Amino acid sequence: MQRTKIGIIGLGGRGRGLMSMIAAMEDIEIVAVCDLWQDRVDLSIAKVKEIAGYEPIGLTNHHDLLNIDEIEGVVVSTSWKDHIKLCIDCMKAGKYSAMEVGGAYALEDCWALVRTYEETRVPVMMLENCNFGREELMMLNMVRQGIFGEVVHCQGGYRHDLRHGLTHNREPEREMRHYRSGEYHNRNCDNYPTHDLGPIAKILDINRGNRMMKLVSTASRASGLSAYLANPPAIENSVPLPDRRWLQGDIITTTITCAHGQTITLVLDTSLPRPYSRNFQVHGTRAMYVEDNRSLFIEGVHNHEEDWRDNWGNVEKFYEQYDHPMWRGYDPSKGGHGGMDYLCMRAFFDAVKRRCPTPIDAYDVASWMSITTLSEDSIAMGGHPVTIPDFTRGEWLRSRDVYEGFYAL
Amino acid sequence: MQRTKIGIIGLGGRGRGLMSMIAAMEDIEIVAVCDLWQDRVDLSIAKVKEIAGYEPIGLTNHHDLLNIDEIEGVVVSTSWKDHIKLCIDCMKAGKYSAMEVGGAYALEDCWALVRTYEETRVPVMMLENCNFGREELMMLNMVRQGIFGEVVHCQGGYRHDLRHGLTHNREPEREMRHYRSGEYHNRNCDNYPTHDLGPIAKILDINRGNRMMKLVSTASRASGLSAYLANPPAIENSVPLPDRRWLQGDIITTTITCAHGQTITLVLDTSLPRPYSRNFQVHGTRAMYVEDNRSLFIEGVHNHEEDWRDNWGNVEKFYEQYDHPMWRGYDPSKGGHGGMDYLCMRAFFDAVKRRCPTPIDAYDVASWMSITTLSEDSIAMGGHPVTIPDFTRGEWLRSRDVYEGFYAL
Repeated sequence: MQRTKIGIIGLGGRGRGLMSMIAAMEDIEIVAVCDLWQDRVDLSIAKVKEIAGYEPIGLTNHHDLLNIDEIEGVVVSTSWKDHIKLCIDCMKAGKYSAMEVGGAYALEDCWALVRTYEETRVPVMMLENCNFGREELMMLNMVRQGIFGEVVHCQGGYRHDLRHGLTHNREPEREMRHYRSGEYHNRNCDNYPTHDLGPIAKILDINRGNRMMKLVSTASRASGLSAYLANPPAIENSVPLPDRRWLQGDIITTTITCAHGQTITLVLDTSLPRPYSRNFQVHGTRAMYVEDNRSLFIEGVHNHEEDWRDNWGNVEKFYEQYDHPMWRGYDPSKGGHGGMDYLCMRAFFDAVKRRCPTPIDAYDVASWMSITTLSEDSIAMGGHPVTIPDFTRGEWLRSRDVYEGFYAL
Repeated sequence: MQRTKIGIIGLGGRGRGLMSMIAAMEDIEIVAVCDLWQDRVDLSIAKVKEIAGYEPIGLTNHHDLLNIDEIEGVVVSTSWKDHIKLCIDCMKAGKYSAMEVGGAYALEDCWALVRTYEETRVPVMMLENCNFGREELMMLNMVRQGIFGEVVHCQGGYRHDLRHGLTHNREPEREMRHYRSGEYHNRNCDNYPTHDLGPIAKILDINRGNRMMKLVSTASRASGLSAYLANPPAIENSVPLPDRRWLQGDIITTTITCAHGQTITLVLDTSLPRPYSRNFQVHGTRAMYVEDNRSLFIEGVHNHEEDWRDNWGNVEKFYEQYDHPMWRGYDPSKGGHGGMDYLCMRAFFDAVKRRCPTPIDAYDVASWMSITTLSEDSIAMGGHPVTIPDFTRGEWLRSRDVYEGFYAL
């Protein structure tokens, strides 16, 4: 078996997690790993050796990794601000790349990604694992089958209590490396839109017959992190950072309007106490799904005068009928986050192996990431609507080369 | 016992429902009932006779009702567009009035309500029954006790499948009297904001130390009613209306920002298939409530790493500890909509009897109803933010005469 040779740039907690998953794949070889910090590189080499029995090359300069000819694909799992720059370097080096999720800091970066893709024709992907979640894929499957009728509105959120990580150094033996804290100190925007937007964008055919036209974004006040630091829980092996003036509002609400008139509401909710939710909702003329109680409501099957509580959790009853092919017979213990990570990574490797387009392509990545900087603009202007660029420049109107295969979205 | 004498203007389905509830109250006498349609008047007289044993005066001109000296309070349950006009007439006649819920058509109407109140000093109230819901009052109680810490964000919605009533004449033996259909044909706004906004406004101390500053509103396309009429269900004794060009978007999302930086998201969702929900959410620095799975999450009590599903429905476990005094020992079978209607009506009658301010006063009514016309403006301008007037003109900064007593909100 010819193993596909890849490199990994960015070896923090997330990068090492993905690396361990990849190391266990028999058809993939991790040729090199790279991080700015040597201790992470050393840790990673040892980890791959432990899992796969071989030692990858360890590097601290990503250009050295890109100079390794045999590497075909690169996983970029660095801090948010380097994702686009590194993927541009990958494209220029002729290597497929897949970036972890995050948002953009300027529209120019999104345009640069698209421009470089069009110049090089080397595909890029975002590792948006939530596009491969069971419920997200099931809803996509049902929408494509017409079960929802016309989809009119979707909602989503990244609603995840991150207060501890944002305000504490959890590796107190060394400098604080967790970069998100600085984001919350200095910015005010939906800094993490793609977990919720990605699956919705596929449901609404964004960049393939539809597009996002404009958005409005509103930020609540920022109270959560200071309140947390005023009374921090005692958690072993972590040191609270000094309180700061946090600019990041606790709740960011963004409403996007699409060319065909559908609306999308996204919520960022990461600095208040709560259980995790992606707050996923799909509303069509024939059916509805609400993640917060995991219930489907289908015209003709359910009756709106029933007590909704009787249908909470009913999504599982529909797995057999409507599961997406990717989830039929799939063992989710193969990868993190309930199995999504594995499917997502395999989708990338499938494109690398077949030298075909990626299922989340440069236009998707640019438009999804642009929501961060555009929400920042809208908030800065007191909620003024801002237009969302058409990164395809008209190509969304026609069919074009897209990924086809098992991992199609 | 001296019975409090009241009149009722507006005897459609809702008006007659309230009338029947009031007729059963031993301390209240319905002196007169009034509607533009004589058949409703006749039906109402017979109904009061049946329940209470006496016959109210039947009228078709509301001025005749306001000329009856002994009437102290008036319930206005007409179509939305007449609520403010009729309550203004009540104030001018020196009679307490309580209007059913609805939205405004112009800011001028909201100002006229406030202006007339300030000229006459005759209190007015909105019968916002949802302000008296068990969970809504419980959250208010918990917020006032500090359980939520600082409240940063609230959400709510009127999410109710109204498609049948909007597209069918359910009294086919006579002309279509259900006026909402015309609203959906000709307007595009959050036409019904107060069920969700009312309880939130009290939680956030709106008009009493805080105020609503601005909003942005976005409408989805309008697909639900035409899709429904293309394939209408066979329901006895109802005739479908012809399909029309519906301007009302299926989902309206409005985000309000308050003076103290809290945000409020409201959703109108009345023309797609779904179970009923008011989508109520409260997010604070110490706790959270989500109606869609009826769960409370309290810092120190719950752990965000638990499976949220284990806490679905847990609100009931907290009734004993946190129920609002109005709900302690209360038998909700006393009034419609799970008991809210009775408490709300008693709150009005308590103010009438004691000649004191109402718990939802002229400033509340004006500001809550203004959201409809302001959302219409924002949508018309493509989502542009619009400012929300301070109907108190600075009085929200200081304490002023408010209702005090058992039904205080």
